Amino acid sequence: MSKKVLVLPGDGIGPEIVEQAVRVLDAVNSSFDLGIEHESALVGGSAYDETGSPLPETTLTKAKAADAILLGAVGGPKWDGLDMSVRPEKGLLGLRSNLELFANLRPAILYPQLAEASSLKPEIVAGLDILIVRELTGGIYFGQPRGIRTLENGEREGFNTYVYNESEIRRIARSAFEAARQRNKRVCSIDKSNVLEVTVLWKEIMEEVSKEYPDVELSHMLVDNAAMQLVRAPKQFDVMVTGNMFGDILSDAAAMLTGSIGMLPSASLNAEGRGMYEPCHGSAPDIAGKGVANPLATILSVAMMLRYSLDAKDAADAIEAAVSKVLDQGLRTADIASQGSETVSTSQMGDAVLAAL
Amino acid sequence: MSKKVLVLPGDGIGPEIVEQAVRVLDAVNSSFDLGIEHESALVGGSAYDETGSPLPETTLTKAKAADAILLGAVGGPKWDGLDMSVRPEKGLLGLRSNLELFANLRPAILYPQLAEASSLKPEIVAGLDILIVRELTGGIYFGQPRGIRTLENGEREGFNTYVYNESEIRRIARSAFEAARQRNKRVCSIDKSNVLEVTVLWKEIMEEVSKEYPDVELSHMLVDNAAMQLVRAPKQFDVMVTGNMFGDILSDAAAMLTGSIGMLPSASLNAEGRGMYEPCHGSAPDIAGKGVANPLATILSVAMMLRYSLDAKDAADAIEAAVSKVLDQGLRTADIASQGSETVSTSQMGDAVLAAL
Ligand SMILES: CC(C)[C@H](C(=O)O)[C@@H](O)C(=O)O
Ligand SMILES: CC(C)[C@H](C(=O)O)[C@@H](O)C(=O)O
Repeated sequence: MSKKVLVLPGDGIGPEIVEQAVRVLDAVNSSFDLGIEHESALVGGSAYDETGSPLPETTLTKAKAADAILLGAVGGPKWDGLDMSVRPEKGLLGLRSNLELFANLRPAILYPQLAEASSLKPEIVAGLDILIVRELTGGIYFGQPRGIRTLENGEREGFNTYVYNESEIRRIARSAFEAARQRNKRVCSIDKSNVLEVTVLWKEIMEEVSKEYPDVELSHMLVDNAAMQLVRAPKQFDVMVTGNMFGDILSDAAAMLTGSIGMLPSASLNAEGRGMYEPCHGSAPDIAGKGVANPLATILSVAMMLRYSLDAKDAADAIEAAVSKVLDQGLRTADIASQGSETVSTSQMGDAVLAAL
Repeated sequence: MSKKVLVLPGDGIGPEIVEQAVRVLDAVNSSFDLGIEHESALVGGSAYDETGSPLPETTLTKAKAADAILLGAVGGPKWDGLDMSVRPEKGLLGLRSNLELFANLRPAILYPQLAEASSLKPEIVAGLDILIVRELTGGIYFGQPRGIRTLENGEREGFNTYVYNESEIRRIARSAFEAARQRNKRVCSIDKSNVLEVTVLWKEIMEEVSKEYPDVELSHMLVDNAAMQLVRAPKQFDVMVTGNMFGDILSDAAAMLTGSIGMLPSASLNAEGRGMYEPCHGSAPDIAGKGVANPLATILSVAMMLRYSLDAKDAADAIEAAVSKVLDQGLRTADIASQGSETVSTSQMGDAVLAAL
């Protein structure tokens, strides 16, 4: 039975990095005889430019029919002036919410070959391996009411709503506990329960769900302290679970600790395990089109996709081994190169991974 | 004319560190003949234990009458089970909001004597000197409606409101631009304007106010990117300005970059420049009562108070010089000591500063 993958290159460096990732996908598809078919569609700013919408109906239809989605990145200054309803980011948020991809898994791993690239001291980050589980379809990103209104005195006021109900918290809690079971069996839930009522409920439901997982240890930390602890001693964490907004901030900080944000894939899963896979980094408009972007996070996103959504563990292993091999060989794109050392281009990195497969 | 200072020791290590800071205040008060009178009052968990309220009416009345307030810290696990309306934090939030202390200035400075204490590599943090200007009386901390309600299906839902109006944004913008004028004339405003409407208004008003400060350069950064950039290259920033919640997270991360969060004071000012001064760190209940806490952040908060609210610049300079001297002498409390080296107690550190004055 054939499997369908929808490829969404998006904006900025998206198309360049996705091109290399698709070459890798094609290679394992034939060598492991996976029967994967893929097609592309528009999303983000490039979709807006072409169709007037950052998430055209045809893209959404294809996304719903796909077994998995591979996304590059969306957004860029070109579209910054647009109304929020048609900005590139709206395409991404629309996919997340329409496909109910509520569980965003963001690993922050230090690649031993790249230890030097971190801005943290080696003893602080050596061996770092954290997983951030971020709720992705609720919270302040989607809360109603929202907008900008004019007050009686003629002044404007902007407002957004941070909201979570029990079911939303319960399902992301389970995702975190399940993930922790495959790892070091520790979940740290991040909240601001000394100030925000919504996170009081969050904390309470985390406690409730933890009873279903007696083998996993649950702890709680305030978000401001979590931001500090990530800098001070990140290895204290195994799985961190948090809401959409805090997760956005903390996962980026955690990824950057490793010095290899150009290396980190992510998965956004729904209740059936179908998912969208994308690099943790953004569309990097400043280097778009120059052929210098690092395609490895996207290539590793293909590996995650094969493992989680396409039941092709061996192919996933092969890709990850190939990436490790090219790093061992010393190949570096500019973002992960030490100062003054030689770098390879986006497509040369793709070539090298293909050769190592 | 005598000046009135209200001292609020609070909870945890609060009383210990404030005790040392008051000794220093008394010393400069007499040597510089400042005519400062001070009295103490209860706030936080200790106030709740005594009176049933984390911010007793008498404390608020004294706070309103004071020229400046010196606060230790509030909160601790002892009060974690309490209803949010009487938690220790409510005392602090009540002071901020009742006194309209909207401008929270949080410097993140690397003390050259303590460079080793940072978890970041020396080349990343050497010479770090950022100022975070955090809006402190609005945003999601105070937004209405808020609470936990039961939905029709019997499930509960938690909700908070993130809200800012033009005046609130305008006044914190001016605080940031004014502060930048005294520094390197660069303001970076942090928002999430690709997702949250309230920060679209924030960004727009920052642009508007920047026209009043043609000598100061304004840039904008998304909050997730800001969290990354603080880890990657914090020295790119001069003044960062942001809302209450983002400021809570980013200022703690920034403070921790320096490795000397036990050294960092903060000021919370109202429109007339009256203010509350407190260390950036929290109540550290785990070490409370042991006499090992670092009093320097609180002592430096006294210096900030003298400079900003009590018109006693010389006394402020003297305190800062004394702190620098004890660091040069090699005195270290446990939090800033290198592994295995000798440490001094809270009161010994206080003694040393007094001797150095
Ligand atoms: C592009 C943006 C809407 C998105 C987010 O805030 O979720 C991005 O920062 C991310 O983390 O995937
Ligand atoms: C104690 C708490 C309410 C407070 C806050 O969140 O503002 C603290 O974290 C701070 O930053 O001063």
